[in-house]
Amino acid sequence: MRLPTLKWTGDALELLDQTLLPNEVVIRRCVAVADVYDAIKRLVVRGAPALGVAAGYGILLSLRAESEMRPAEMRQVVEDAAAHLASCRPTAVNVAWAVGRMVAAARAAPDAELEARLTAEARAIEAEDREANRRLGAHGAALLRDGDAVLTHCNAGALATADYGTALGVIYAAGEQGKRITVYADETRPLLQGARLTAWELLQSGVPVTVLCDDMAASVMAAGKVACVLVGADRIAANGDAANKVGTMAVAVLARYFRVPFYVAAPTSTLDTNVASGRDIPIEERDAEEVAAWGGVRTVPVGAAVYNPAFDVTPANLIDAFITEEGIARPPFETSLAALRRGRGGG
Amino acid sequence: MRLPTLKWTGDALELLDQTLLPNEVVIRRCVAVADVYDAIKRLVVRGAPALGVAAGYGILLSLRAESEMRPAEMRQVVEDAAAHLASCRPTAVNVAWAVGRMVAAARAAPDAELEARLTAEARAIEAEDREANRRLGAHGAALLRDGDAVLTHCNAGALATADYGTALGVIYAAGEQGKRITVYADETRPLLQGARLTAWELLQSGVPVTVLCDDMAASVMAAGKVACVLVGADRIAANGDAANKVGTMAVAVLARYFRVPFYVAAPTSTLDTNVASGRDIPIEERDAEEVAAWGGVRTVPVGAAVYNPAFDVTPANLIDAFITEEGIARPPFETSLAALRRGRGGG
Repeated sequence: MRLPTLKWTGDALELLDQTLLPNEVVIRRCVAVADVYDAIKRLVVRGAPALGVAAGYGILLSLRAESEMRPAEMRQVVEDAAAHLASCRPTAVNVAWAVGRMVAAARAAPDAELEARLTAEARAIEAEDREANRRLGAHGAALLRDGDAVLTHCNAGALATADYGTALGVIYAAGEQGKRITVYADETRPLLQGARLTAWELLQSGVPVTVLCDDMAASVMAAGKVACVLVGADRIAANGDAANKVGTMAVAVLARYFRVPFYVAAPTSTLDTNVASGRDIPIEERDAEEVAAWGGVRTVPVGAAVYNPAFDVTPANLIDAFITEEGIARPPFETSLAALRRGRGGG
Repeated sequence: MRLPTLKWTGDALELLDQTLLPNEVVIRRCVAVADVYDAIKRLVVRGAPALGVAAGYGILLSLRAESEMRPAEMRQVVEDAAAHLASCRPTAVNVAWAVGRMVAAARAAPDAELEARLTAEARAIEAEDREANRRLGAHGAALLRDGDAVLTHCNAGALATADYGTALGVIYAAGEQGKRITVYADETRPLLQGARLTAWELLQSGVPVTVLCDDMAASVMAAGKVACVLVGADRIAANGDAANKVGTMAVAVLARYFRVPFYVAAPTSTLDTNVASGRDIPIEERDAEEVAAWGGVRTVPVGAAVYNPAFDVTPANLIDAFITEEGIARPPFETSLAALRRGRGGG
């Protein structure tokens, strides 16, 4: 049985600390919005869909900070917390999307029902993510054949969502259909989410997994061992350019070169129709120390500069299809993605 | 002043221990061929040209094991040591090439001069490598313009050769011509030769260097920051397919996609005309623990398989030119490489 990635207890958000996996299993208890902000910043919780769910509960916790608030004050606290949380990790759009829903709920709620409506909205964001991933998995599983080996980068699994996962959800769904799927997991430097998280959760689900360094992905593709690539996304522009963990773009270029289908699995909440193309997606740069040291051992000599973008943008023309809870989108993505978004009532 | 990668003292081979850089500077003293074998196996010394030089001296040390030997016995010891050393790391052809020279020298030498001839041959291999790298650097520097940023993978520098380096030698030579060159160094998982060794030696030579994770190379290329890619090679087939540190092929695919010239810098001793194409180059697989743990911290959960090839083969059609001590080879490589090899009398 998998431990939940996150759990709302009614007065706290409990998070499985993903910075310590696979060596330690520790639950972090967040009782204030500042705890949630810190957990998002430090990657205790990560993955665009999971960040959206956590941010929704973070907004709820912002209301616990003060003992007595009038409704107007509460709405202001919600708006401030929303802006604060949305600034924490700028690339993943799901945070902005989730806190936007919370702000809209706060504005729409009658004063007497404000807290109840916000609680319901945060729970709905979580429930919708759980349901979306199951539907996404079912759509995507149709793309996998029995015996396929899938290459993935970073972690787009149960740990990146409320449950089940996006890219890994497709693999779980295929497994539930009786297809035997194996996975090549890029370790995903610098923070090794592929080695530490993807391998860990696949093993817990009984899916055979082989971990490789990011610079070995070309070798397995060249050897003809990879049936397709499945990755998640942190933000998808209207034209289909997709931001995801740094290194995804390289995998997409390799997949095209070696004629391996490249699929992006993400809920429609990851679509951002406000950005026309990937050029407009902000890319978070993180601390140099993430690259320069590991396990307390320095690996980059003092004096060398370090480049540490957390994401890159895969151009739409390298993506064969998007897998969403509303179905599969094929090129041209401007129209196919917009149609799926209309499908879920996203306008 | 750089510390020498290796130094023959007359009765020992001193090696700068590259497993400990950049955190510790330790010299390992090899007094027997077994010490050299162990040093090569553990990557105390690495880089195809440096391995060739070390193997030559390793043959000399094989003769020190026994106090009294007749010439026939000495020749047998040399042949046995040659076979042993050549088996240690099968991909780099320079070891087989160097020990082949030592065996040929042993066979050709009059009994009375056997040890002197072998000593001269080992010293010649080293001296030729030093000189070849200087000439290679001068040829390659013509490809770089003032202000260029060069991306490299692994370490093809002074630490990979007797001195000066191949890919990095080109950068040093350009610098000596007054060109200001900066370097993006892929960290090069699993053993981080780019972060630990390339950055270290470039800083010692005053070349500005930025270290990035291997999965970030696409980002710097997509941003238009890379003028060209320069890498070394461990073995070059007759058709121009080039084996080098794993990850090199991915960089070549990216370079082609982003229209960045991709150059391989290697002495003609790295050409193996016995191998028609890359398909015939043996690829060493190394221990899973190199990938699964770092600094004593486990990063891959127990139960996950690990894939750890040490090299990959970049297809000739992704290589814009080879830079050798005899000049630049452009496609078609079958003829251009063969002409360069004839240039150095390699037949």
